[in-house]
Amino acid sequence: MAIKVHGQPLSASVQRVLLCLAEKGLEYELVLVDFATGQHKKEPFISINPFGQIPGFEDGDLTLFESRAITKYISHAYADKGTPLIAEDPKKQAIIGVWLEVEALKFDAAGQKLSSEILIKPMLGMTTDEAAVEQFEGELVKVLDVYEARLAKSKYLAGDDYSLADLHHVPIISSLFTTKVKAVFEEHPHVSAWCADLLARPAWQKVLEGIKF
Amino acid sequence: MAIKVHGQPLSASVQRVLLCLAEKGLEYELVLVDFATGQHKKEPFISINPFGQIPGFEDGDLTLFESRAITKYISHAYADKGTPLIAEDPKKQAIIGVWLEVEALKFDAAGQKLSSEILIKPMLGMTTDEAAVEQFEGELVKVLDVYEARLAKSKYLAGDDYSLADLHHVPIISSLFTTKVKAVFEEHPHVSAWCADLLARPAWQKVLEGIKF
Repeated sequence: MAIKVHGQPLSASVQRVLLCLAEKGLEYELVLVDFATGQHKKEPFISINPFGQIPGFEDGDLTLFESRAITKYISHAYADKGTPLIAEDPKKQAIIGVWLEVEALKFDAAGQKLSSEILIKPMLGMTTDEAAVEQFEGELVKVLDVYEARLAKSKYLAGDDYSLADLHHVPIISSLFTTKVKAVFEEHPHVSAWCADLLARPAWQKVLEGIKF
Repeated sequence: MAIKVHGQPLSASVQRVLLCLAEKGLEYELVLVDFATGQHKKEPFISINPFGQIPGFEDGDLTLFESRAITKYISHAYADKGTPLIAEDPKKQAIIGVWLEVEALKFDAAGQKLSSEILIKPMLGMTTDEAAVEQFEGELVKVLDVYEARLAKSKYLAGDDYSLADLHHVPIISSLFTTKVKAVFEEHPHVSAWCADLLARPAWQKVLEGIKF
């Protein structure tokens, strides 16, 4: 197969790429990277990502890293396949671009740290820092307050159509919904409806089915 | 004028947008946002950016926020003007996309916090947290180690041509070069040459001339 994703399916960043491939209906091979033996810090993986982090990505002779760079590439290179995730019109694409930045720099900054404190640390035998959880919950609330006002006006973040900006949120929403942080989302009715819509999409169900717990 | 940038010219995020406009040779009006009176947290500004942060941007009836979403819009919408900052070929653009993500999520994460600790805090009468400086310097070194290997192989991050991925670094490099953190860059010879090249570009000189100290 031409497309290869290197990583672990429990990683939110890897799931972001798998979800994008599922929305596009593209076939791929998942190449497992074994953290236990430090494969992510050795060749050949660090030739794909010199930072030694998953996911890595191959499409023929093209190699990429950074989950959001990979999904943007897929969305553009396979624009005519499956679900449209970007817009051809530069102004419409610019609005998607704004919410792509907000996800990466604001939503994920809080959400990913909450997931790490509440879910990842206990898995690794480490103790959750409750003060950090409180701080990041406060940051998440501020982001979701803006989303609530936005989603009162349009079904999705960048307008009435689902886009890559919505897609990028799904793995972290899905993991936080298994924790007490779900209540923070539920305090925002339009955000809650948006989350329910995103999590119910067949492409996300397909990604979840592929994760072996 | 059709293009308006709302902000303060001392902000690195605002400078990122001004530099992009300068590379494209586009005219614009800078609309000052007065932090002292809290203009950034009130209408009409929060209708442009609901997070109440600069810059805000207008191009006719289009309003945007997030500096990197603004520069990406400018690069696409005005692709035929001034310096090319993006690539038409999806694979070449994907490589630019990787380094755009690295700048936003890795370089800026460390660089912006260093600038804040060393430059912004003293301006506001606050004390620099030296432990934080040491931590973020350590993070910056790891990023620059990867850049050094990359820039040993190509003149710019995404290849032999200057791109938006290089441009996004300039304001933080420029401000950190006025501090002791300059030494961290100088320990990396290819990074040093790249920085010198970026800072010498006429478009950046034009932005600096426009900043009233």
